[in-house]
Amino acid sequence: MNSINQLKDVINEYLLKNQYSSAVKQLNKPIDYTIAQKPKRMRPLLCFMAANLNNNDYLEALPVAAAIEYFHNFTLLHDDIMDNADLRRNKPTAFKQFGLNSAILSGDFMMINAYQYLEELPDAAQLKCFKALNYAAAKVCEGQQLDINFETTTAVSEKKYLEMIAFKTAALIAASLKMGAIVANLHQNDTENLYQFGWQLGIAFQLLDDVLDVYGDTKKFGKKLAGDIVQNKKTYLLIKALELSQPTDKAELLNWFTKSDANEAEKIEAVIKLYNKVNIEAITRQKAKDYTEAAFSYLNNISAKLSGINYIKNYANQLLNRLT
Amino acid sequence: MNSINQLKDVINEYLLKNQYSSAVKQLNKPIDYTIAQKPKRMRPLLCFMAANLNNNDYLEALPVAAAIEYFHNFTLLHDDIMDNADLRRNKPTAFKQFGLNSAILSGDFMMINAYQYLEELPDAAQLKCFKALNYAAAKVCEGQQLDINFETTTAVSEKKYLEMIAFKTAALIAASLKMGAIVANLHQNDTENLYQFGWQLGIAFQLLDDVLDVYGDTKKFGKKLAGDIVQNKKTYLLIKALELSQPTDKAELLNWFTKSDANEAEKIEAVIKLYNKVNIEAITRQKAKDYTEAAFSYLNNISAKLSGINYIKNYANQLLNRLT
Repeated sequence: MNSINQLKDVINEYLLKNQYSSAVKQLNKPIDYTIAQKPKRMRPLLCFMAANLNNNDYLEALPVAAAIEYFHNFTLLHDDIMDNADLRRNKPTAFKQFGLNSAILSGDFMMINAYQYLEELPDAAQLKCFKALNYAAAKVCEGQQLDINFETTTAVSEKKYLEMIAFKTAALIAASLKMGAIVANLHQNDTENLYQFGWQLGIAFQLLDDVLDVYGDTKKFGKKLAGDIVQNKKTYLLIKALELSQPTDKAELLNWFTKSDANEAEKIEAVIKLYNKVNIEAITRQKAKDYTEAAFSYLNNISAKLSGINYIKNYANQLLNRLT
Repeated sequence: MNSINQLKDVINEYLLKNQYSSAVKQLNKPIDYTIAQKPKRMRPLLCFMAANLNNNDYLEALPVAAAIEYFHNFTLLHDDIMDNADLRRNKPTAFKQFGLNSAILSGDFMMINAYQYLEELPDAAQLKCFKALNYAAAKVCEGQQLDINFETTTAVSEKKYLEMIAFKTAALIAASLKMGAIVANLHQNDTENLYQFGWQLGIAFQLLDDVLDVYGDTKKFGKKLAGDIVQNKKTYLLIKALELSQPTDKAELLNWFTKSDANEAEKIEAVIKLYNKVNIEAITRQKAKDYTEAAFSYLNNISAKLSGINYIKNYANQLLNRLT
């Protein structure tokens, strides 16, 4: 199989063709802006890697990889409105760049484009991928709604939090692998194992995202550190720290996360101190490791070609270690 | 075939089952609120009537009728945000009732639900309806974008305006008939004629909507009169009046439509006076009549059962005369 960078070039070239661009130019602007940013393309790449497991030409998965990437980017356009976010990938969000109406409408158009890409597939694969995309799409909305619900409560259980990130993040990653497997006509059992792998991997990935927001290397992570603390976001770190802290520390944590006028630097320092007291970095990293191991155990059940499986394992390790 | 009211009961009962409602309750609220309003259900009914043309049970078209109605209502949720609209069907818009984030996210979920309804169809019909829905969906977004573009210019041509309403309104009405025909496995030629009928009918319907906003009966129309004038909306009436008015009248019209601080009653009276000077009501009604005749000529080309065609004609006449 080609290198990771070659795979990225392949999907970027295909996406930049933008075959469903509109004759109504204004509709394309936020889409072109978003697609031109060329992030790591994790979902299309995982889709290619699944499609590669059956000696097929992975390029057959291009339309479905594009569908997933379009769908994912549509969710970013709308999520950034809901979060009133200024920056995404170190650039102004489409919402800030083009305004509310543009971000809503081009987001809608982008979601429709995602479905249109599926039309390129042969009938049998199209029907299965349609169902898989629908399912993941509905889950992503449910995850986003849970995330919104969490904004107004501090009583979020670990279980509920894990459900939220599974829906919001893992469902589409799992679907990426599944849809690649469908296009390559993999055995049903292998397809299911790839799906489960993607689901567990997605949860591990998000848990590490939570860790890196606080304990990461700013340059490598590409975001301002501790943004989640500043924005009072419910993360695994906070939820677990609330569970494990002594009553007075818990009260202090709750106090910081319900304030809106706190001094930023002071707040970050105080919260990290409380996190460290209950060893929250190690606990969250261990949780992510548990999910990673669960993910890899599903990969080991797959009967398809070993070199392809190892390729996926290597890529997953790079992803989790933020080396790609 | 059943009566119009019976058809409405059938689709309402099916929609109220809300089979794709989420376990995340907050996501359903704007959807349940919107669906509970039971408007005339023009699109599902036209879909049933097309499906009825082949001696099939029109109930086979239920999933596709629901898909279209869900799609249509999703567009209303998002359009009302873009228009900052307070009222829809004499009730607060979902945006005003549940807030921005809820209207965006439940709108997205509703669009996905629309696609999910298509999964209920047999494979061949599903593939065709998927393509038809995608096409109409993209057109609806393009029409909405054109409508937004028109907000910031007074130089809208008649041709461009007709294109906008064709995309925004007619494309989905045409798709409703086409998708009903697909489910009933109508002859390709009949399906195409139904599609063209719906397209022309949709344009006629929107032109009459423009007329009724100014010259209608408030009670029958269900909206405050002359809202389009108050909101400086580009309508067929305005565009045609600008084209036909003498230079001084044109300048006065333009002046009214670029003001934001005008006295409402004064503005409405002045604009209607200018409209009447160039006989705009009759001109627009004639234009709508031209489209209606074009629509009916397509119906006359259809080989399927005559009683079914007559049923559609009667319903179309009721729609255009706002008797349903």
